[in-house]
Amino acid sequence: MTQRIAILGASGYTGAELVRLIATHPKMRIVALSADRKAGLTMAEVFPFLRHLDLPPLVKIDEIDFAQVDLCFCALPHATTQEVIAKLPKDLRIVDLSADFRLRDPADYEKWYGKPHVAPEQQKEAVYGLTEFYRDEIRKARLVAGTGCNAATGQYALRPLIAAGAIDLDDIAIDLKAGVSGAGRSLKENLLHAELSEGTYAYSAGGKHRHLGEFDQEFSKIAGRPVLVQFTPHLLPMNRGILATVYVKGDPARVHETLFDAYVAEPFIEVLPFGALPSTRDIRGSNFCHIGVIGDRIPGRAVIVAVLDNLTKGSSGQAIQNANLMLGIEETTGLMLAPVFP
Amino acid sequence: MTQRIAILGASGYTGAELVRLIATHPKMRIVALSADRKAGLTMAEVFPFLRHLDLPPLVKIDEIDFAQVDLCFCALPHATTQEVIAKLPKDLRIVDLSADFRLRDPADYEKWYGKPHVAPEQQKEAVYGLTEFYRDEIRKARLVAGTGCNAATGQYALRPLIAAGAIDLDDIAIDLKAGVSGAGRSLKENLLHAELSEGTYAYSAGGKHRHLGEFDQEFSKIAGRPVLVQFTPHLLPMNRGILATVYVKGDPARVHETLFDAYVAEPFIEVLPFGALPSTRDIRGSNFCHIGVIGDRIPGRAVIVAVLDNLTKGSSGQAIQNANLMLGIEETTGLMLAPVFP
Amino acid sequence: MTQRIAILGASGYTGAELVRLIATHPKMRIVALSADRKAGLTMAEVFPFLRHLDLPPLVKIDEIDFAQVDLCFCALPHATTQEVIAKLPKDLRIVDLSADFRLRDPADYEKWYGKPHVAPEQQKEAVYGLTEFYRDEIRKARLVAGTGCNAATGQYALRPLIAAGAIDLDDIAIDLKAGVSGAGRSLKENLLHAELSEGTYAYSAGGKHRHLGEFDQEFSKIAGRPVLVQFTPHLLPMNRGILATVYVKGDPARVHETLFDAYVAEPFIEVLPFGALPSTRDIRGSNFCHIGVIGDRIPGRAVIVAVLDNLTKGSSGQAIQNANLMLGIEETTGLMLAPVFP
Amino acid sequence: MTQRIAILGASGYTGAELVRLIATHPKMRIVALSADRKAGLTMAEVFPFLRHLDLPPLVKIDEIDFAQVDLCFCALPHATTQEVIAKLPKDLRIVDLSADFRLRDPADYEKWYGKPHVAPEQQKEAVYGLTEFYRDEIRKARLVAGTGCNAATGQYALRPLIAAGAIDLDDIAIDLKAGVSGAGRSLKENLLHAELSEGTYAYSAGGKHRHLGEFDQEFSKIAGRPVLVQFTPHLLPMNRGILATVYVKGDPARVHETLFDAYVAEPFIEVLPFGALPSTRDIRGSNFCHIGVIGDRIPGRAVIVAVLDNLTKGSSGQAIQNANLMLGIEETTGLMLAPVFP
Repeated sequence: MTQRIAILGASGYTGAELVRLIATHPKMRIVALSADRKAGLTMAEVFPFLRHLDLPPLVKIDEIDFAQVDLCFCALPHATTQEVIAKLPKDLRIVDLSADFRLRDPADYEKWYGKPHVAPEQQKEAVYGLTEFYRDEIRKARLVAGTGCNAATGQYALRPLIAAGAIDLDDIAIDLKAGVSGAGRSLKENLLHAELSEGTYAYSAGGKHRHLGEFDQEFSKIAGRPVLVQFTPHLLPMNRGILATVYVKGDPARVHETLFDAYVAEPFIEVLPFGALPSTRDIRGSNFCHIGVIGDRIPGRAVIVAVLDNLTKGSSGQAIQNANLMLGIEETTGLMLAPVFP
Repeated sequence: MTQRIAILGASGYTGAELVRLIATHPKMRIVALSADRKAGLTMAEVFPFLRHLDLPPLVKIDEIDFAQVDLCFCALPHATTQEVIAKLPKDLRIVDLSADFRLRDPADYEKWYGKPHVAPEQQKEAVYGLTEFYRDEIRKARLVAGTGCNAATGQYALRPLIAAGAIDLDDIAIDLKAGVSGAGRSLKENLLHAELSEGTYAYSAGGKHRHLGEFDQEFSKIAGRPVLVQFTPHLLPMNRGILATVYVKGDPARVHETLFDAYVAEPFIEVLPFGALPSTRDIRGSNFCHIGVIGDRIPGRAVIVAVLDNLTKGSSGQAIQNANLMLGIEETTGLMLAPVFP
Repeated sequence: MTQRIAILGASGYTGAELVRLIATHPKMRIVALSADRKAGLTMAEVFPFLRHLDLPPLVKIDEIDFAQVDLCFCALPHATTQEVIAKLPKDLRIVDLSADFRLRDPADYEKWYGKPHVAPEQQKEAVYGLTEFYRDEIRKARLVAGTGCNAATGQYALRPLIAAGAIDLDDIAIDLKAGVSGAGRSLKENLLHAELSEGTYAYSAGGKHRHLGEFDQEFSKIAGRPVLVQFTPHLLPMNRGILATVYVKGDPARVHETLFDAYVAEPFIEVLPFGALPSTRDIRGSNFCHIGVIGDRIPGRAVIVAVLDNLTKGSSGQAIQNANLMLGIEETTGLMLAPVFP
Repeated sequence: MTQRIAILGASGYTGAELVRLIATHPKMRIVALSADRKAGLTMAEVFPFLRHLDLPPLVKIDEIDFAQVDLCFCALPHATTQEVIAKLPKDLRIVDLSADFRLRDPADYEKWYGKPHVAPEQQKEAVYGLTEFYRDEIRKARLVAGTGCNAATGQYALRPLIAAGAIDLDDIAIDLKAGVSGAGRSLKENLLHAELSEGTYAYSAGGKHRHLGEFDQEFSKIAGRPVLVQFTPHLLPMNRGILATVYVKGDPARVHETLFDAYVAEPFIEVLPFGALPSTRDIRGSNFCHIGVIGDRIPGRAVIVAVLDNLTKGSSGQAIQNANLMLGIEETTGLMLAPVFP
């Protein structure tokens, strides 16, 4: 049976990526697409790369008949999202790609996002969407909150290690390198080609990046005590891809073994042989995450490198993986596309 | 029934692109992969982006049992190819991606490639692989010669116009912009990132590029008289994509109408509305070709812009499209992947 | 004697490029910088790459005491410029980098820019700033209008040929490839890194680009009859550089000889040996223009390729070259910086 | 008085960068250029971007009359260099850009470079070329060993802190992002545009990178005890620029103050206001190094970010700065070129 899909916020990058992936998904059919300022246009006008597809026109959200929708992806801006979701039918299955429902504690939300949450009931209901670690909850969930793309990358590198007690919890630094599509299609000077290409810089450094809220919530929950990591993201002159270099104290062989064992049965997480390190070019456009571990020359220290595509495994691919689970579809359906290289 | 596929020359970009596409092709299964210097390695070692796939190891060509192969893709270097194909079983279906069998006339081959052909019998047998124009021959062919990627782009823009007599045959200029993967994985100074990025230049200008042999052969055949075009390729700092800007004399509206009518039923060729021009970003990683037409301010002149991905529609995607036809599979099978943007 | 320089519109790319070049100019000193929305900031805040320089703060134009200024560069947006310049002191030397004073005929201006000129007196007075061809007028000028960067590139390739009668005036096509800094620092979706990198497309094709007004004015004046060229600009994923591929009918050897002779004494124009073609990477960041000529395989046709850096020779470098002449400084002063490669 | 300069190894990137900088240096004149395989060619043939310069032809080293040379830059490959320098006149001033004379202890050299040094006498004589910290020695030196470009970046961030005891010496991690020109003009698959652009990865991780030899030597010397840092370099899709993100334990305000005070009088080192972080785009093509400091949310931890252009401040610009000192020329002469942005 083909599931009827709506996408709210289809004129952004994550919305377009959802359409790209669903285009060859055998069990999903797009029946509604919304965009605010671009309502009235066709997807082909907004994203000519999708012009070969037969898609419904972009409409306003209130023009959608949600009774005809089996699952709704929400790819709207942060803050707007909670207002929209609060008004959607209470029995509609939703996969949200915004930041609005990632933090379970309303106080945490307010701390990191600067204002109170306006949909506290839905916030309580939401399941955190890191598929490999919340699979059972996601299967039963009505509302799944997709993770931050940086937050996903760091968690894939660290969760099994924290759970296993394989590393020192008080000395974890995540140095992250991110492609620019993670910043969305917003018109900012620093995202212009002339400003970004041929250069790199750190941003939201020193503990200010909002994805730290997710790290804190998840790592502390696993450890059963507060865990604070250091996190320095950098913007790189590339469109897709995140690479996280994670500095930990722990036995390198055990670190590798722990990660290898944790992911050996996972269809999308590949742990490389000890000493081999991954490249973002090898996961571009795909739902795969590659992880490598190397020992430092200083005994008792290891470096973990994890890569994924922020728009796919870090966002829209993850969302479809979760939607598959929620709809009783085989989890990998539509997601086995090979990366695009070169 | 799943067809058993061999790929010779799997360690180059077109070989890797074949594997990428076949990875999600429901009717093809890779049973053999060859590489010369890299025999003994796994594909995951040569191309880590394919490490999630269960693939046969790279072997030497003579280790392959071709009795167990339904169709063989040949992605070997020019010149080597003809020697290899001459020795393959005479009843093996082959799609060749090299330049060796594109020119039907042995004299043309010698003129453009500088030496006599060593497999003249196979050369006679080969069908030119521009699917949309050789569909019937390809269905019945044993050996199909994939086109040059530049040659395909220019022909999509011009063949219907020449056939319809819609343009002046003596004043055609093709100014072409090509991404670097078309040059293959060869180690040349001008292909280094530091030399190519942030710059552009013309190469093989003035009528020296070998794809002119294909233009001459095909355009003259259609016109029934010699047709010589001007052709200036440029190398651009991007990996995938070709954009051909074609200057013609003819009525712009008729030019557009002729192209529109010629391709209206084609699954992979999209002619944009009159006045709209395509971008390579909109076909990246896909088997689509977008074509736009605009009238010049000088009456009686039109500009046609055609774009495709050199590795997909210009090479490996085209090869699979042809293989589908040869094997009795629906032509678009495995090729409806949406482009990757951004 | 050091000349006192003001720059109006210092917060854009051409303004910043003027500062970059004047930073090592031995005879110029910046005494005033204006910016509209960014008045009150320092240049280091707007352009951290200039933070090592001791510069005046950004102010509003009316805060500048023009009595203390020997020459004023005007790097303001089109249309705004004519209003500003109309109000500046009538004896102030001005080099304008906008499009406002390039077209001498008010009717031409209105045709290409869509509204009447508001400073017709200054328009009459303005000298066209293509240094090599207006040197004597520029020396005596009070107001010099910098050329369009695309317009400069095409003219360097064609002016001597039109003057010499070396080519067919009715069959000239300029296919131009431009880096993105020519579009300025404006916030447009198509200028985002994620939209522009790894792709290319044509824009303002079919005779709509405003620089055609300059081509028409200048080529027709040289020829003594109307000359209409075809012109298709393309945006490329690079920051600096323009490459113009020009298709002409004429004897290739004569074309080369004519260009070589025309520029042999010019300090910034380099004509390469016959058959050699230039690359934008070889002029990046410099005031040089490289020109190459090759004969086509079709007798009587030649292809000319000209490259320059749009921000330097195409704009701010040209402006300083003109200012040097107006101020009685040796023409090449401050402009012999070598290109930056890689 | 103009100094007569020879450059050995002029056909690589650092050789070309030396020529670019000397082109506008008022006190230096290039009298000899060597290249091995490219001897017999002109610089314009090897590097067309230098074609406007009047330069001596490329010759073999033994064709150079060193009696007519005041100072010789040596931009040869590692290992070759020590053989060449051992044979040069013993009174010739030399600035070496290779790795051969950076490590003072022959045992260290053998450890990091895998074989015994063949010019141990010159090794003893060599002064380490980090100008700001070896100024007096460099003034009197005959042979100066230019630093590694990564090694320079890390040292600018850390030396004053180690000297002041402002940070924990046992917990220093340098996560470094490097543009590709640092890898030179060598023909390697991973340096191809198609392999490098749109991606990033770590290399020589875990304590294997040879620049660690320099860190160990210098930091241990300053501290008076062994200091071992962690160091993970990453290759980025950009040509020029290094950004080092350095994780330290220490009071952030003191870290900033220490760095600010250390560099306040330095012409090329700019320490940004506390909390501001630098970008590589702001130093591209220049001899400047920008440094920023931010405090982490975890008390007692700071992040330092340092950027410089690997080919300029990290290599050829540094070399000229040192040569100026050795020749009694004002230190900043020829090096105040503003960065190139965008």
